[in-house]
Amino acid sequence: MAEAAQPISPQGAKARVLVAGATGYAGALAAGLVWKHPRLELVAVTGRSETGRKLSDLYPRYPVPLELKELEDSDFEGVEVGIVAYPHGAAAPVVAAMRGRGLLVVDLSADFRFRDLPVYEEFYGPHGEPGLLDGAAYGLTELDREWIREAELVANPGCYPTASILALAPLARAGLIEDVVIDAKSGVSGAGRGGGESTAFVTVTENVNAYKPAGHRHRPEIVEKLGLIAAAGGNPEAAPDRLTFVPHLVPVDQGELVSCYVTPRRPVAQAELDALYTSAYADEPFIRLRDVPPGMRDVRETNFCDIFPLVTDDRILVESAIDNLWKGASSQAIQNLNLMLGLDETEGIG
Amino acid sequence: MAEAAQPISPQGAKARVLVAGATGYAGALAAGLVWKHPRLELVAVTGRSETGRKLSDLYPRYPVPLELKELEDSDFEGVEVGIVAYPHGAAAPVVAAMRGRGLLVVDLSADFRFRDLPVYEEFYGPHGEPGLLDGAAYGLTELDREWIREAELVANPGCYPTASILALAPLARAGLIEDVVIDAKSGVSGAGRGGGESTAFVTVTENVNAYKPAGHRHRPEIVEKLGLIAAAGGNPEAAPDRLTFVPHLVPVDQGELVSCYVTPRRPVAQAELDALYTSAYADEPFIRLRDVPPGMRDVRETNFCDIFPLVTDDRILVESAIDNLWKGASSQAIQNLNLMLGLDETEGIG
Amino acid sequence: MAEAAQPISPQGAKARVLVAGATGYAGALAAGLVWKHPRLELVAVTGRSETGRKLSDLYPRYPVPLELKELEDSDFEGVEVGIVAYPHGAAAPVVAAMRGRGLLVVDLSADFRFRDLPVYEEFYGPHGEPGLLDGAAYGLTELDREWIREAELVANPGCYPTASILALAPLARAGLIEDVVIDAKSGVSGAGRGGGESTAFVTVTENVNAYKPAGHRHRPEIVEKLGLIAAAGGNPEAAPDRLTFVPHLVPVDQGELVSCYVTPRRPVAQAELDALYTSAYADEPFIRLRDVPPGMRDVRETNFCDIFPLVTDDRILVESAIDNLWKGASSQAIQNLNLMLGLDETEGIG
Amino acid sequence: MAEAAQPISPQGAKARVLVAGATGYAGALAAGLVWKHPRLELVAVTGRSETGRKLSDLYPRYPVPLELKELEDSDFEGVEVGIVAYPHGAAAPVVAAMRGRGLLVVDLSADFRFRDLPVYEEFYGPHGEPGLLDGAAYGLTELDREWIREAELVANPGCYPTASILALAPLARAGLIEDVVIDAKSGVSGAGRGGGESTAFVTVTENVNAYKPAGHRHRPEIVEKLGLIAAAGGNPEAAPDRLTFVPHLVPVDQGELVSCYVTPRRPVAQAELDALYTSAYADEPFIRLRDVPPGMRDVRETNFCDIFPLVTDDRILVESAIDNLWKGASSQAIQNLNLMLGLDETEGIG
Repeated sequence: MAEAAQPISPQGAKARVLVAGATGYAGALAAGLVWKHPRLELVAVTGRSETGRKLSDLYPRYPVPLELKELEDSDFEGVEVGIVAYPHGAAAPVVAAMRGRGLLVVDLSADFRFRDLPVYEEFYGPHGEPGLLDGAAYGLTELDREWIREAELVANPGCYPTASILALAPLARAGLIEDVVIDAKSGVSGAGRGGGESTAFVTVTENVNAYKPAGHRHRPEIVEKLGLIAAAGGNPEAAPDRLTFVPHLVPVDQGELVSCYVTPRRPVAQAELDALYTSAYADEPFIRLRDVPPGMRDVRETNFCDIFPLVTDDRILVESAIDNLWKGASSQAIQNLNLMLGLDETEGIG
Repeated sequence: MAEAAQPISPQGAKARVLVAGATGYAGALAAGLVWKHPRLELVAVTGRSETGRKLSDLYPRYPVPLELKELEDSDFEGVEVGIVAYPHGAAAPVVAAMRGRGLLVVDLSADFRFRDLPVYEEFYGPHGEPGLLDGAAYGLTELDREWIREAELVANPGCYPTASILALAPLARAGLIEDVVIDAKSGVSGAGRGGGESTAFVTVTENVNAYKPAGHRHRPEIVEKLGLIAAAGGNPEAAPDRLTFVPHLVPVDQGELVSCYVTPRRPVAQAELDALYTSAYADEPFIRLRDVPPGMRDVRETNFCDIFPLVTDDRILVESAIDNLWKGASSQAIQNLNLMLGLDETEGIG
Repeated sequence: MAEAAQPISPQGAKARVLVAGATGYAGALAAGLVWKHPRLELVAVTGRSETGRKLSDLYPRYPVPLELKELEDSDFEGVEVGIVAYPHGAAAPVVAAMRGRGLLVVDLSADFRFRDLPVYEEFYGPHGEPGLLDGAAYGLTELDREWIREAELVANPGCYPTASILALAPLARAGLIEDVVIDAKSGVSGAGRGGGESTAFVTVTENVNAYKPAGHRHRPEIVEKLGLIAAAGGNPEAAPDRLTFVPHLVPVDQGELVSCYVTPRRPVAQAELDALYTSAYADEPFIRLRDVPPGMRDVRETNFCDIFPLVTDDRILVESAIDNLWKGASSQAIQNLNLMLGLDETEGIG
Repeated sequence: MAEAAQPISPQGAKARVLVAGATGYAGALAAGLVWKHPRLELVAVTGRSETGRKLSDLYPRYPVPLELKELEDSDFEGVEVGIVAYPHGAAAPVVAAMRGRGLLVVDLSADFRFRDLPVYEEFYGPHGEPGLLDGAAYGLTELDREWIREAELVANPGCYPTASILALAPLARAGLIEDVVIDAKSGVSGAGRGGGESTAFVTVTENVNAYKPAGHRHRPEIVEKLGLIAAAGGNPEAAPDRLTFVPHLVPVDQGELVSCYVTPRRPVAQAELDALYTSAYADEPFIRLRDVPPGMRDVRETNFCDIFPLVTDDRILVESAIDNLWKGASSQAIQNLNLMLGLDETEGIG
C-alpha cells in the first residue's frame, strides 16, 4: 500500500491503472487516454453492463482491446491507480475500497468534491464515505497543484465548475465579483450515455434549450470553490453576493462554453483585467488567453481551457471553452494523475 | 395609389405583392409565405444576383416558379405591397421609391427601426431617407398593433430584438428592470446567405462561440425600444440602467434563443411574475407562455415566440425562443402585413 | 357506416378524423397536418403512452391542443376517418375495429401493404387480419390513384419503398431493370421515437453507417411492387433479376435519399430516359424531375419527391429524395385521404 | 542533399519537416501531426494566404506556434522532408523544387498519382513535371510498402481512392470483380477550406445530396489502381468490366464511408470472402475487419480504415470507413513518411 501510493514512479516504469466504470463516455475516454499514455499501463477496465465485451467494440475510436469485467471479478494485484467513473453515490464505496487497497484514486464523481458535507447531502443525498472527504484534494489542477501532488485521492471537478471556476478565479481571488451570471452551453455527452428521449438525435439536432434553470448541482460546487478562492486570496468577505447558473443543451457531442457576466465591485479597466489574467495564467500549459471569443471546436479533444476576458457595458464578460469530456473530465483526471505520480503534467495529454 | 394604401382589401380579392431581395434567406422565405397565403398574390420577386433563374431553383423548398428580375426591370403595375429584404443602407432608397408609388411597405432592414437618428447613424452609417422615419411603425406586432394597422411603412424588427423585447416587455412596462444580461444564441441563417469561412459547415458544426461581444447592432435597438416601453408604461425613469447583450453562434440553421437575466428593482415573486406575463400575453395567438424552458425546435418554422419566465437566485430569468427567419423576420412581416391590410393577423402563418 | 365511407364530402363540410398512435413522429405529424387541413377536422388523438397530456405539449411545433386518450376511451361518434400510426402487428386489429365501424382508414404500418401474405409473415410475423388484405389499396398515390380513390382501406407505403419505387417505376414499367442496387440514406426519425443508444445524438452526429445490410423489411415491399409494376406494364417476365437494398443512417432528423444504380436490360440513351420520366411524371403535382441531384433539404417538410435520372458509366443512376415523415409517411397519408374523400389531392399539403 | 534523402534517420534524431500549404484542412492537420510526432521536427509551415499569422491562431486545435510564411521566404537549410498540400497543378512545381533540393517529399495532390499521363491530363489538365512521375510511389501504404520505403517522392492517394481501393483490393487481386458500384459518402472537409455557398452550414446541415454524379476525378484513380492490382495478382484480364462511382455530401465535418456493391465473376461464399480479407489484412495495424458495418465515428481522427465485407443478395457488399483528413490524407502521409524514414509505421499516428 505504501509503495502503491508512492508519488513518484521510477523513471521508465509504468504505473498500473484500473478504470472502473469504463462503459460511460468519461470512463471510456479515460481508458483510451491511459492506453496511449507513455507512463501508464492500463491493466483492467470494468463496467456494470457490457461485461465480456472488449472496450474497443463499444468504442472503436479508442482501440483498447481489454475485456470489460465486473469490478468484483477484477484482479487488483499490482494495480497502483484507480480512476473511478461511477455515478455519484455509487462511486464512494468503490473509492473507499480502492483506498483500502492503497491505490491512488482519481474519482470523476461529485462524491468527494465538497468541503461542506451538508451542501453535498442536500444536492446528492446521503454520503456513504464522509470520512474520506478530508483527505480528498479538489482536482482543478491549475488552482491547487501542490495539494493534488500530495493527495492520494483527488476529486475531479465537474465539467461546468472546471470551465466556470477557471474563468472566474482571477476575479474571485481579487475579491472583485459582486454578482455573476453564468450562462453555460454544453454538448450532449455531458448528459452521459444511455440517454432517453431528451438526448435523442431528433430531440437535440437543430435545437437549443435551457434545462434545470434552477438548482443544477454544479451551482453549489462553483459557489463553494469561488468562496474558498476569495478567502485564499485574502478576501473572505468578498465571495460573490449573487451567482446565477443556467445550463443549456446545444447540438454538439463534446464541448462546453460558459459565458460569465460579472458585475464587479468596482470599475475595472481592460488593462487591469488583462493583467489579472496574464498574471494568473500566462505560464499555464493548458490555459490559453485568447484575443477573440473561443469556440468549442478550438479545444475539442484537447485538455485546453481557452479564456477570453472583456470589459463591456460596465460589466466584465469572460468566455471560457473546454471539451467537457477532456478538460471537463477525463484528460483533467490524467493531468491530476500525472501530478500525483510525479510525472510531467502534460504527459499523455499534451 | 390611395387605393393601394387602403388598409382593407375587399373580401376575396388578393393584395398584389412584390418581394425585393428574394435571393437571401429572409426574402426567399417571405416570397414563399406570400406564395401560399390565401389573400396575397405574389406578382414579382427581385434580386441583384441570380436574375433570370426561378426562385424555386434557388430554394426548392419554396416552390415559387417566378423568375428573379432586377428591381428596375420589374413591372409595378397594380402592385400594392412591397416587402423589402435588402441590406441596411441599400433598403432605404428602395423603400422610398416604393412609397413614392403608393405601395404599402414592410422593410426587413434596420433602416426605419430607430426613433433616434443619431443612434442609427452611429451603428449603421448615414441614413438615406430620414424623412420617412417619422411615418414608420416599428413592427413588433404584439406591442404596437394599432400603430401597425394604420402604418403605410413598417420597419420589421431585428431577430434578436424580437425575441428579447417580447421576453422583457412585461417587466419593462412595469419599470422593474434595473439591469439585464441578454445571452443570445442564434442559428447560422441569421448571418445571411453567401457566407464565407465563418459560416462554413466545418467551422460551425460541433462548435459554439460568442461573436461581436461588444457593440452588436441589435443592442441599441433593444435599448431604445425597452426605454420607449418603460415610458409608455408610465415608468420613463425606469428604463434599464444597464443592458449587456452578447450573441453566440450555434450549429443550427434556423432558430434563436435568448436568455435574459434580469436584476429587478425590487423583489418579485413567481406569482407576480406569472401574472405580469399572463396579463400581457394570454390572448396572443403567437406567444406561448411555457412551463418548461422552450427550445428552438419548439418554434421551428412557425411564427411563435415561446416565453418562460422564472424567479431564480434573487433574479428573474426569461428564456425566449423564436425562429429567426420566421418570427424574427419573414413571418412577422406577413403578420404585420395582415394587419396593414385589415386581414386576420394569423392568415397564412397560423 | 355507408355514409362514413362516402367518398365525397359535401362541399364545405369537414370530414371528422381520429389519429390513433399520435405520440410517435409520424402520428403526431399526421395529427398536425389534419389540424391545419381546411377540409378535415381532427376530433381525437390517441396514444398508448402519454395519455392525459396535450399533443402540443409533446410536440410544440404542432399546435394541436387535444388531449391524448387511450383508443378504448375515445368517442367514435361521428368519426368518419381513422389514420392509424401503430407498429406493425398492433395496427391490424385497430384497423379492423375501425373498418367495423365503417371508418375510412389510412394505415401507416406494414400490415396491409403486401399482396403476398407468406412474404409478409416471413418478415413481420403472423398476420392478425388477413381477411382485410384484399380490400386494401397500396397507397403510393402517383401509381394507383383510381384504386385509392375507391378504397376504404389504404396501406400507406414504407418510406424507403416510396422513394425507391417512384424512382424506379418508369424503368420497371418498361421492363428495363435487369439488376438494381439501392443505396438508401435516411434521417434518424425513420427509426421512430423513444430510441435508445443507436439513435442518441452522440451516436449519430458526425457519423454515417449502414444498418441491416441484409434482410431489411422494406426490400420485399419494393420487390413485390416493382414486380407488379412490370406486370402491369406488360412486362411480367421483366421484373428485376436482382435487387440489393442497403440502408444507411445519416445525421439528419427528417429526410431520405435513395441512390438507385440500374443495370438496364439494353442500352438506354439519356434522351430515352428523360422521355420515360417526363411521360410518367410531368403532370404530377408532387413529383419534380430535377436537372441536378436533389438533396434532402430540397424536399424537407414537403410532400415532394424529387427525382434525377442519369445515364452514366453504361448504367442508369436515379437519385430520389423525400422527407421520410412527410411523403414517406404522413403527408402521403393525407394525399391518399384527399383522394378517398374526393377532395383536391393537394389540399392541406400543397 | 544526398544525406537529406537518406531513408533512415539515426536513432533518436528527428527528421526536419516543412509543410507547404498549411492553411488548408489537410495541410494544417499534417503540420499538427508532425508537431506532436516524436521523431519529426516541424521547422516551417507555408501558405499563400494568411502569412504572418501563427498556425495555432488559424487552427487553435493544433497548437503549432509557427508563423506561416511564403514558400519563397522559407529557409530550407537542413530541411529533409517536404509535405506538400497544394492544389493539383500548383503542387507539381513545388514538389520539383523540393526534389531538386534533395528533400524526401510526400505530395497530397493528384499530380503524381497516375501511371497513365493522358488520363491525368484528361481530368486535371497539362502536367507540369511529367519527368517525376516515374519515380513516384503511390502511397496507399498497405498495398505498396516496399515501393514506398524506397521512394523519395510519394503521391498520397485521394480520400475516396484510399477507402475504395482498400475495400476492393482483396477482390481485385483475386480477379473477382466483374462490376462494381461505389456509393461514397463524404464529410464536408473533403471539399477543402474557404468554400462558398455549397459548403455553407445552412446548405449542408440536415441535407444529403449526390454531387458530380458523372466524371468525378477520383474515379479514374480507382480504375487505374484496381487494374494494376488485378494485374499484380496475376489477373490482368480480370480488372472490373464496369465501375460506377457516385459521391454524396453528408452533414459531417470529417469522415468518409464507401459502400461497394460488387457483382462477382463467380459466386463467392461468405467463408471464402472472410478468408480473402483476413489473409489480406489480419496483420495490418491500421485496417480493422469488422463484424458490424462501420461508421465514420468509429475511425474519426484516427488512421484506421474499418472494413466490413458481406455476401448479400448474390452480390458482395463491402463497407469501408476512414477519416477523410486522416487516413484519407494527412495521417496516411505520416504513415508513408514513417516508412520512407525507416521508422515504425505507427509512430505518431498510433
